[in-house]
Amino acid sequence: MFLTRTEYDRGVNTFSPEGRLFQVEYAIEAIKLGSTAIGIKTKGGVVLAVEKRVTSPLLEPSSVEKIMEIDEHIGCAMSGLIADARTLVEHARVETQNHRFSYSEPMTVESTTQALCDLALRFGEGDEESMSRPFGVSLLIAGHDENGPSLYYTDPSGTFWQCSAKAIGSGSEGADSSLQEQYNKEMTLEEAETVALSILKQVMEEKVTPNNVDIAKVAPTYHLYSPSEVEAVINRL
Amino acid sequence: MFLTRTEYDRGVNTFSPEGRLFQVEYAIEAIKLGSTAIGIKTKGGVVLAVEKRVTSPLLEPSSVEKIMEIDEHIGCAMSGLIADARTLVEHARVETQNHRFSYSEPMTVESTTQALCDLALRFGEGDEESMSRPFGVSLLIAGHDENGPSLYYTDPSGTFWQCSAKAIGSGSEGADSSLQEQYNKEMTLEEAETVALSILKQVMEEKVTPNNVDIAKVAPTYHLYSPSEVEAVINRL
Amino acid sequence: MFLTRTEYDRGVNTFSPEGRLFQVEYAIEAIKLGSTAIGIKTKGGVVLAVEKRVTSPLLEPSSVEKIMEIDEHIGCAMSGLIADARTLVEHARVETQNHRFSYSEPMTVESTTQALCDLALRFGEGDEESMSRPFGVSLLIAGHDENGPSLYYTDPSGTFWQCSAKAIGSGSEGADSSLQEQYNKEMTLEEAETVALSILKQVMEEKVTPNNVDIAKVAPTYHLYSPSEVEAVINRL
Amino acid sequence: MFLTRTEYDRGVNTFSPEGRLFQVEYAIEAIKLGSTAIGIKTKGGVVLAVEKRVTSPLLEPSSVEKIMEIDEHIGCAMSGLIADARTLVEHARVETQNHRFSYSEPMTVESTTQALCDLALRFGEGDEESMSRPFGVSLLIAGHDENGPSLYYTDPSGTFWQCSAKAIGSGSEGADSSLQEQYNKEMTLEEAETVALSILKQVMEEKVTPNNVDIAKVAPTYHLYSPSEVEAVINRL
Amino acid sequence: MFLTRTEYDRGVNTFSPEGRLFQVEYAIEAIKLGSTAIGIKTKGGVVLAVEKRVTSPLLEPSSVEKIMEIDEHIGCAMSGLIADARTLVEHARVETQNHRFSYSEPMTVESTTQALCDLALRFGEGDEESMSRPFGVSLLIAGHDENGPSLYYTDPSGTFWQCSAKAIGSGSEGADSSLQEQYNKEMTLEEAETVALSILKQVMEEKVTPNNVDIAKVAPTYHLYSPSEVEAVINRL
Amino acid sequence: MFLTRTEYDRGVNTFSPEGRLFQVEYAIEAIKLGSTAIGIKTKGGVVLAVEKRVTSPLLEPSSVEKIMEIDEHIGCAMSGLIADARTLVEHARVETQNHRFSYSEPMTVESTTQALCDLALRFGEGDEESMSRPFGVSLLIAGHDENGPSLYYTDPSGTFWQCSAKAIGSGSEGADSSLQEQYNKEMTLEEAETVALSILKQVMEEKVTPNNVDIAKVAPTYHLYSPSEVEAVINRL
Amino acid sequence: MFLTRTEYDRGVNTFSPEGRLFQVEYAIEAIKLGSTAIGIKTKGGVVLAVEKRVTSPLLEPSSVEKIMEIDEHIGCAMSGLIADARTLVEHARVETQNHRFSYSEPMTVESTTQALCDLALRFGEGDEESMSRPFGVSLLIAGHDENGPSLYYTDPSGTFWQCSAKAIGSGSEGADSSLQEQYNKEMTLEEAETVALSILKQVMEEKVTPNNVDIAKVAPTYHLYSPSEVEAVINRL
Repeated sequence: MFLTRTEYDRGVNTFSPEGRLFQVEYAIEAIKLGSTAIGIKTKGGVVLAVEKRVTSPLLEPSSVEKIMEIDEHIGCAMSGLIADARTLVEHARVETQNHRFSYSEPMTVESTTQALCDLALRFGEGDEESMSRPFGVSLLIAGHDENGPSLYYTDPSGTFWQCSAKAIGSGSEGADSSLQEQYNKEMTLEEAETVALSILKQVMEEKVTPNNVDIAKVAPTYHLYSPSEVEAVINRL
Repeated sequence: MFLTRTEYDRGVNTFSPEGRLFQVEYAIEAIKLGSTAIGIKTKGGVVLAVEKRVTSPLLEPSSVEKIMEIDEHIGCAMSGLIADARTLVEHARVETQNHRFSYSEPMTVESTTQALCDLALRFGEGDEESMSRPFGVSLLIAGHDENGPSLYYTDPSGTFWQCSAKAIGSGSEGADSSLQEQYNKEMTLEEAETVALSILKQVMEEKVTPNNVDIAKVAPTYHLYSPSEVEAVINRL
Repeated sequence: MFLTRTEYDRGVNTFSPEGRLFQVEYAIEAIKLGSTAIGIKTKGGVVLAVEKRVTSPLLEPSSVEKIMEIDEHIGCAMSGLIADARTLVEHARVETQNHRFSYSEPMTVESTTQALCDLALRFGEGDEESMSRPFGVSLLIAGHDENGPSLYYTDPSGTFWQCSAKAIGSGSEGADSSLQEQYNKEMTLEEAETVALSILKQVMEEKVTPNNVDIAKVAPTYHLYSPSEVEAVINRL
Repeated sequence: MFLTRTEYDRGVNTFSPEGRLFQVEYAIEAIKLGSTAIGIKTKGGVVLAVEKRVTSPLLEPSSVEKIMEIDEHIGCAMSGLIADARTLVEHARVETQNHRFSYSEPMTVESTTQALCDLALRFGEGDEESMSRPFGVSLLIAGHDENGPSLYYTDPSGTFWQCSAKAIGSGSEGADSSLQEQYNKEMTLEEAETVALSILKQVMEEKVTPNNVDIAKVAPTYHLYSPSEVEAVINRL
Repeated sequence: MFLTRTEYDRGVNTFSPEGRLFQVEYAIEAIKLGSTAIGIKTKGGVVLAVEKRVTSPLLEPSSVEKIMEIDEHIGCAMSGLIADARTLVEHARVETQNHRFSYSEPMTVESTTQALCDLALRFGEGDEESMSRPFGVSLLIAGHDENGPSLYYTDPSGTFWQCSAKAIGSGSEGADSSLQEQYNKEMTLEEAETVALSILKQVMEEKVTPNNVDIAKVAPTYHLYSPSEVEAVINRL
Repeated sequence: MFLTRTEYDRGVNTFSPEGRLFQVEYAIEAIKLGSTAIGIKTKGGVVLAVEKRVTSPLLEPSSVEKIMEIDEHIGCAMSGLIADARTLVEHARVETQNHRFSYSEPMTVESTTQALCDLALRFGEGDEESMSRPFGVSLLIAGHDENGPSLYYTDPSGTFWQCSAKAIGSGSEGADSSLQEQYNKEMTLEEAETVALSILKQVMEEKVTPNNVDIAKVAPTYHLYSPSEVEAVINRL
Repeated sequence: MFLTRTEYDRGVNTFSPEGRLFQVEYAIEAIKLGSTAIGIKTKGGVVLAVEKRVTSPLLEPSSVEKIMEIDEHIGCAMSGLIADARTLVEHARVETQNHRFSYSEPMTVESTTQALCDLALRFGEGDEESMSRPFGVSLLIAGHDENGPSLYYTDPSGTFWQCSAKAIGSGSEGADSSLQEQYNKEMTLEEAETVALSILKQVMEEKVTPNNVDIAKVAPTYHLYSPSEVEAVINRL
C-alpha cells in the first residue's frame, strides 16, 4: 500500500514512488495564483505585457514591478512570488555584468537563461546563493543577441524552453490558446503589442488602464513603456 | 487525499500543495496582533503616526519605540514583534552608513527598502544575518531622496510596495478605508498630520495623548515629534 | 482543521497559525515559577530587591545570588533560570568592559540592555554565543549614566522596556499593583527601599530576614547591601 | 511486522528491509515518464535518435534539446528530468576538457561515463557537486576513441553498461524488443539510422517530422543532424 | 489540549508549556540512581565521604573512584554517571592548571565551580567540549582558598550553590535531614568525619568497610584517606 | 511494550533494543539479491569465478564487470550493488598505489582488506569518503604476498574473515555446502577452477557459457581469463 | 502518562524520564550476543582466553581475531562487534605509540584504558574520530607497567573498572560466578590458564580445540599462544 502522495513532499527534494518531485509541483501551483504575463517574439523584437494587481488606489502603480531589465539587451516578465523573482533577476544582472567585464561583449540570451535555471535547479542543496525551497516564480525572458530576437520561458524546476509566444500566470491557459490562434511569424512588433494587450484584456477582470498593465519591448534594447505609450496601445484595441 | 494544511507549515520554508508558504502567512498574523501605524506621503514630506500600548503607568512612554530613524533622510514605523524590527533597522542603519562611506552620498529610499527585504526573504537559509523564521514585523518606511518624498510598505515575505498612504497593524483594515476616503495628493504635511492622528484616534480604544501616540516626519530630514509637538497636533483634531 | 497548538512549538523558533512563538511563551512561564524581584527608580538612584529561596539551613545564603553587578554603574536583579542569567550577565560584563576599553567611557544603560537583548533574540540561530532555546530569565537592569538613573525590564523574547518601577517573578502580578498604588516620582531612595521591601514581604510566604532577601542600589554606583544594612531596612517596615 | 515499504524511502539513501534503495527506484520511475531515446552502435560509428515532445506550435523545436555534445568525440541522448541531465552533461564537459588540458589527448568514453556515474552515485552525501536526491535521468552515451565506437547506458543508481543497442524512456520496453530483432553487428551506419527512426516511429503517438525527432551520430566526431538531414532519413523509411 | 509532557522532552534543550526543561530533569533522575556522597564544611577544612558500590569481590575497590582531586586545593565527590564526571573533572583540571600558569596563583574554588557549570550549561549547543545531552552527574566540590574552606554543590542544569553540608545520590533525602540535625558551625574536622560516615552508614544497605567507602579532606590541601585511615574513622563510630 | 523492529532502523546507524544494527542487516539482504561469486584458495594461487547476468543480447558481456583488479597481486569478485563496489575498489587501488609509492613494496593482502573495511565501517559518519548508508556489497579478495596466496571475505558491516574457500550472492548457501564437500587443501589450481565452475553451474539457471561467467586467478599475479580460456575450463566439466 | 520507553531511545544520546541512556543499554545487549572472553590477573602476569566461533571449516581460525596486541606491554580480549573493536584498538595503538615517542616510556595501562573510554564516551558528538552510535563492544585490557600486572574491563558507556578476574560476552554470567569461586590472589599464571580454559569449556557448546579458543598472556610482555601452546593447556584440563 502506498501512503498518500502528501507523505512524500515534505522532504524538500525527494522523489515520490511515481517519480515526481512534489515541492516543484507545488511551486508551480504558486505561479497559477500569480498575475498573467504574455510574451510575443517578432522579427523586429520581443514584446512583454503583464497584468498588475493594484489592490488600492493609494498604491503607486509604478512600484508594482512585474517587468524588469536584466541587461540592456534582455528583460523579463514574471508571475508568482515577486520577492523570489527579484533574487533571480539580481543574480542574472550580476552574471551579465560579469560577462561584459570578462569578455567585453554581452552575454547571450540563452546563457543568461541557463544561469538563472542553474540557480533555480539547486534549491535544497545548501549552496550559498540557492534557496532551501524551489523559487516560486516563472519568467518570460525576452532578449536580442547575435542570433536576433528570442523569447525563453522558465519554470520552478529549472527547465527552460524557447518559444515564439507564451503566457504564464493565472490566466495562462486561455491566453495560450488565444496566442496559438492569433500568432503568425510575420507579425510586426506593433501587431504583437496589440495582440498581447487584447489577450491580457480578456483574462483580466477589470478595465485595462495604464495603471494596471505594463508593456516592455526588447528591439533590440530593453524599453519599458511610459503610461502614455501604454495608453497609445490601449487606444489601438 | 490531502493532509490538513497544518501538516505543511512545520518545514519553515516549504510550499503547501496549493503553492502557499504558511510560515510567512503566520508571521503576517503576528502583525495583525500588533499596534496600528499609519504613513501618509505629501509633496512636502512624509508623516508617520503610531499607537503606543503603554500597559502600565510605571512604563516610560518614550521607551516604547515604534518609530525609529534609519538615516537622517529615512525613518520607519513598525507593527509586530519589536525585537525583530530592531534587527532589521540595525541592518538598514549599517547599510546606509556603508553606502555613505563608499559613495559619499545618501542611499536611496528604494535601495534601503530592498536591502531590508533581501534580509527578510532569506529566512530559514542559515545565512549569518538571516533568521531561522520569517521576521514577524511590517514596516512603513518614510524617506526623502533625489526623487522627492516616498513611502514604502514591507511585509514578512520580503515583498515591498510604494504607497501614497498606508496603515498596518491590528486596526489597519479600518484605517486603510479611511485613508482612501480622506487622502488627496495635494494635502499639506500639516493636513496629513491631522488625518493620520484622527484615523489613529478612531482605531484606538483609549483617549489619544502624547503618551500613547508617536508622530514623526521626514521633510526632508527625519524628526520625531516632542510631546508638546504631539500635543499641538492633538489639539487641532 | 488546525492541529492543537502544541504541534507548533517543537520547532524552536517557528510561528503558530495565530502568529505566536510558543517557545518564547513557555520560557516566560519559566519566569512565573521564579522568585520575585522588584525595582524602583527614584531621582536619587535605583533600588533592586529580591526574594531568595534558601531551601535548607545548610545553604550559604550569600551563594544564592539573584542580584549581580554588571559594571560599576549597572546592576541587575533576575527571576527564572539562574544559570541562564549568569550567561547573560557574563556577556554584558564583557560588552561593558570592551566599551570602556575602546571608548574610555562607560557604556550607557540602554546600550547594555540592547546588547543583552540582541543575544536573547537570536536563540535557535546556531551562533557561537546564542543558545538553542530562549533564555529562561527576566532581568531588571538598574543603572546610572549621563541621562541619570534608569530602570529597564527585559523578557525572554529579547524585548525591553524602560520603567519607573517593575516587579518580575511568581509574585509579580500582586507586586505590580502595589507598585502602581505606592509609587510617586518624588519618592526618595530611602522611601523606595521601604516600599520595595514591604511589597516583597506581602508576596513572600515566610518572614523577611537578611537571609532571604537581597537589596542593592545604583546611586550612582552599584552597591549590594550587607546583612546589617538589610536588617536596617527591615526594621523600618 | 514490517511497516509498508513507503516508510523506508523518505531517508534519501537508506536500505529497506529487503535490501532495496527506494529513492533510486523512484528516480527510475521518473525516467519511465520521459520521452524515448534510442542508440545503435555500428562499426562505422554510433547513432542516437530521440523523440521530442513539442507541446505547443509556439515552442521552438530546436530548444527542446535531448541530444547534447559532451566533447567532439562524445555525445549523449537523455530521458527523464532535462534540468538534471544538463548538470551531468556540464560536469562531463568540464571533466573531458580538463583531461585534454592535462594529458593532451581526449578522455576515453568509458572514463567519461565513469565520471558521470561517480557524481550520480554520491547523491545525498552533501558533496559540493552532488545532489540531495538521485539524478532523475538516464543517458545513452555515444563515443569514439582508440577502441573504436562504443555506446554506454547509465541509470540513476550510478551503474553503467556497454551495449550494442539500447532504448530508454517511456517506449523503451517495446523499442528494446524491436532492437533485439533488427540489430546485427554488420549493419552500416545508414542502416542504423533507418532502424532507429523506424522503431521511434512505432512508439511515438504522432507522425514523425524533423520537428519532433532529433538524430545525431559520432562517426568518429559528434554531429547533430540538420532538419533536412533528418528529413532525408524520414524519407528512407 | 496539551500533548502529554513526554512530547516535549525529545528536543534536547526546549521548554515545555509549563516552562520546564525535561532533559535536565531526567538527568537529575540519573543522579537519584547513583551512590550517596556527603560533604561537610568545618572551620578546619572540608570532608567528603562516598559510598562505593563494589558489585563483585573480583573488582579492585580502588578503581571505583568517586572522589577525585581537581587541584591540590580542590577535590570533588560525585554521584551519577562516572564517565560524565571524568569529563567534567578533566575539564576543571585543565582550567586550574591554566590559571596557575597564567596568573601564578591557584584558581579560587568558586571560579573553578563556575567553569564546570559553564560547560554543563551549554549541552546541546554543538560546542567543541560540550555534550549533546546534559551531564548526568552532581558534584560536591570541596576546596580551600584565600576565603578559607568552602563546599559547593552542582546539578546537571549548570546551577551551583555554596553549602555548609550537603548529600547527593540515592540516599540524599535521608542524609540531608540527618545533616541538618547534626551539623553545627563549630564542629571540628574529626567530628565531621564521624558525622559523615555515620550518616553514610545509615543509608547504605551493607556493612561499612574500607572497601566500600572513600573519605577525603581538603585541609587545606587535598588528601584521599588510605584504607587504614578509613578504618580508623569506622572504629570511632 | 517494544515498538516493532522497523521503528529502529531509520536512524542509519543506531542499535535496536536487542543490540542489532538494522541498516547493516538490510544491506546484507541486498547482497542476497546479487549474482553468485566463488573463491577457492590453493597452494598454487587463488581462483575467483562469478556469474554474470547478461539480461539482453545487446549488452556487451565484457562491460558487466564482476571481477576487478586492485593491484597486480590482488583481485576481487563482488556481489551486490556494483556501483558501490566500484567505489570500494577505486579506494583500494589508491591505497595500494600510495603504499607502493611510500614504501617501494606491495601492500599486503590483509592491509588492503583492512583499508576497504575501514571505509565500509564508517558509513553514516559524514566523512569525506564514507557513504551515508552501508556499502551494499560483499567482496571476495584474492591475493598473493609474502605469506603466499590468501582469500578474504568482507561484508557490509566492515568485518572480514580469511577463508580457504567461500561463496557469496544469491546462490551462496548451496555453493558453500558444495565447497565444504569438495574442498581439500591439496587441490591444484586447475582442480579449483573446475570445482568453482561446476558449483557455479549448479546455482545458475541457464547454461554456462564464456558470456555469462568470468574467471580470474592470482597466481601470483592477477589474470582475468579470456573467453577461450573460460571455454577451456567449461569443456573440462 | 509516559510514552513507552522505546520513544526515548531514538535520539542517540538523550535521557529517558527515568534517567537512562537507552542506546548505551542496547549496545550492551550487542555484547551479550558476543562470544565469551575471560581475563585473570595473577602476580606473575595476566591471562586472556576467548571463545572463537568458527562457523565453517573453510574459515581460517587464525583470521578470527578476538585477542589483539595494543602495545608490547598491553593486550586485549573483546566481545561484541569486532569491526568496532578494531577501531578502538587502532586508536589505542596510535595513542601508545605517540606516548612512547613523546615521553620515551610506555603508556601506563590505566592511561591507555582511559584514552579508549574517552573515545567511547563521545559517541554521537560529531567529533572526527567518534562514532554516531556507541561502540558495540566490551574489552578486557591486560597489561603490565610500573605498578605490576593489571586487568581492566570497559563497557560501551565509556566506563571502566579494574578487576582481579572478569568474564564478558554471552556466557559471562556463569563464567563470572565460576571465577568468584575459583579465583585466589596467590594463583600462578599456569593455574590461571587452566582456570580460564576450564570455565570457557563450561560455557561453550562444542569441544574445546586449538581452533576455537585463543589464549594470550602479558607477563610482562604480550604473547599470543601458538596452537601447540593452546593444545598443552587443553591437555592439562
